[in-house]
Amino acid sequence: MENFCYSIRTKIYFGKGQIHNLGNAIKNYGDKVLIVYGGGSIKKIGLYDRMINILNENNITYKELSGVDPNPRIESVREGAKICRENDIQVVLAVGGGSTIDCAKVIAAAVHYENDPWDLVKNPIKITKALPIVTVLTLAATGSEMNKNAVISNMSINEKVGTASELIKPKVSIMDPEYTYSVSKYQTAAGTADIMSHIFENYFTHTEAVDIQDSTAEGLLRTCIKYGKIAVEDPTNYDARANLMWASSWAINGLISYGTKNIGWTVHPMEHELSAYYDITHGVGLAILTPHWMKYSLNNSTVNKLAQYGINVWGIDKNLDKFEIANKAIDKTSQFFKELGIPMTLREVGINEEKFEIMAEKVTAKGKLGTLYPLTKEDVINIYKMSL
Amino acid sequence: MENFCYSIRTKIYFGKGQIHNLGNAIKNYGDKVLIVYGGGSIKKIGLYDRMINILNENNITYKELSGVDPNPRIESVREGAKICRENDIQVVLAVGGGSTIDCAKVIAAAVHYENDPWDLVKNPIKITKALPIVTVLTLAATGSEMNKNAVISNMSINEKVGTASELIKPKVSIMDPEYTYSVSKYQTAAGTADIMSHIFENYFTHTEAVDIQDSTAEGLLRTCIKYGKIAVEDPTNYDARANLMWASSWAINGLISYGTKNIGWTVHPMEHELSAYYDITHGVGLAILTPHWMKYSLNNSTVNKLAQYGINVWGIDKNLDKFEIANKAIDKTSQFFKELGIPMTLREVGINEEKFEIMAEKVTAKGKLGTLYPLTKEDVINIYKMSL
Repeated sequence: MENFCYSIRTKIYFGKGQIHNLGNAIKNYGDKVLIVYGGGSIKKIGLYDRMINILNENNITYKELSGVDPNPRIESVREGAKICRENDIQVVLAVGGGSTIDCAKVIAAAVHYENDPWDLVKNPIKITKALPIVTVLTLAATGSEMNKNAVISNMSINEKVGTASELIKPKVSIMDPEYTYSVSKYQTAAGTADIMSHIFENYFTHTEAVDIQDSTAEGLLRTCIKYGKIAVEDPTNYDARANLMWASSWAINGLISYGTKNIGWTVHPMEHELSAYYDITHGVGLAILTPHWMKYSLNNSTVNKLAQYGINVWGIDKNLDKFEIANKAIDKTSQFFKELGIPMTLREVGINEEKFEIMAEKVTAKGKLGTLYPLTKEDVINIYKMSL
Repeated sequence: MENFCYSIRTKIYFGKGQIHNLGNAIKNYGDKVLIVYGGGSIKKIGLYDRMINILNENNITYKELSGVDPNPRIESVREGAKICRENDIQVVLAVGGGSTIDCAKVIAAAVHYENDPWDLVKNPIKITKALPIVTVLTLAATGSEMNKNAVISNMSINEKVGTASELIKPKVSIMDPEYTYSVSKYQTAAGTADIMSHIFENYFTHTEAVDIQDSTAEGLLRTCIKYGKIAVEDPTNYDARANLMWASSWAINGLISYGTKNIGWTVHPMEHELSAYYDITHGVGLAILTPHWMKYSLNNSTVNKLAQYGINVWGIDKNLDKFEIANKAIDKTSQFFKELGIPMTLREVGINEEKFEIMAEKVTAKGKLGTLYPLTKEDVINIYKMSL
């Protein structure tokens, strides 16, 4: 096990009706909030009205920034920061999924930054101060509700970049699985793939003796496999929504990566390029790339971990040849995403070979990509091609 | 899954050499500390000298309270609080295992309490303020380094009682597995049993659909079984010490109990009575009682969870009859503790029937005991008798 520093200070109110804690959660930090949200879904499910009532009852005044896109744009960040400055906002309240929360995080930092906030995305060290962030989660996917990461897109230059800072970790997150009942089958499937991809990125390393981290990751993967399917078939199944929601946080809050030699992610940066050029659904891009990345990475130095995955997650007979176990596990992964209803080729989501070269160039600009089997530019192009 | 509120704000520096963070960790809260420790073991391993150097280098002044007993006494708490008041202590620094940390926790609260600190043990609600606590852990067992609990003994009235408050949760804990290299085989075995008992108390509930919590608990138990044995045989095996140490925190910091219907522990309060009358090693008492408690609790309403334990922790064939699986799992649990070198009868640790009646009376004074199969006074006596 490697050395690490654990610090997960976000307070989580998890479960049915936990929204009643919103007023107190905000008032610990101030009484002027910017509400950040996406489209109208929070109005459809009654969450918007409930929230406004709570703010009014607690004498909390608010401004709004709505229309935050999936793959949230730097333009929204600029606008949000401007509203905060003009209205002496004290707390940023994100209500939605990961895109909304990510956008709110960078807004919270941008308020205290004089120049263009795109700097904060490209260069996390420039984040030196941020408004406190409170979130109400409505989609189980990115884990942004409990971590320090934010991913922002700048479509004018085809860049989708992740930034991170302890300063933008939410202070409080309210996670009511019932808010995800209305998430479409497609987005539920994509969210499940996103959660699983976070776990894969953390799990597939070459660290010895991380039994706690590995067994937790494997349990989370089994949870996603079991409940992802149930949630797609039965959207108002509370247990499925609850397990997926809590899994989304664990997948990327540090619990399964502390102590591992995780020196860089692989499939996420490759997918960010797809989203930056084609604006596709993030989880779908991840699901398409993942099995091909696994297959491409399978060799003598990686087979043990891939076989461990097959045995402990998919229940494959441990007495088989380890390459056979690994290959079966990869096939089962692909089959699972397909059964969730995810289109499993790039062509189906409108992507062809045209940009492979430039995307692979960008994603390997700082060196080889990833931890399990570090990829060169050529490797990345090959995996994109396999995914067509 | 049940509603819950997650809040684990302790910062953990985990791994080799992390003691170098001690100075900064303390200085965030003050520069006058009370060092609380037990016997001379921290001097033998060089930790005491290293720590004093760091305090001196950082211009941190200190007083000392040494000689804290296993099953820490209320007398030590009184003395520690007095030293703090007389010296304007700002931070309580606990260096040792769970006993030392528990003692430090109640000292930190007692400083701000006018009357006798035993009140704070009997009535946690009286804890309204506490000095910040920093810990350096030297024994993997109680999990006190990352939770809000403290257990204090008052031998004059044969009481060993647990208290709890968010206010006494350590701010920072330094966990270097190398500090546990010198822990004896006996104490390593007892510590492993303590960790496993915490997991059992959290795991054996009647909550449906807590897949994340259950799979994590099962992974932690497998980790304890694997590495407990290795650590007893090979005390300087870093991976074994590291996994046990991190497991000790997870077992009782909330991660595996959030979302479960955990309405009360069983074996711990039963063991507290043994320690209160006979001052035995806590983990040994737990190991002796645990298999008998499991066997006594096995019935139609509990067999599914006990069989799940057998399949997922001990790898017992899931096609067997579920009572057979449960019984095999219980036998394996007992056998494991025996192989660790733990005396597995009460008689071996000097306990006879004499106090069973009064201990059972005390432990069920507020009603039935536990969650899996709530125990009456008669049930408790029966389990004590089975454990003779």
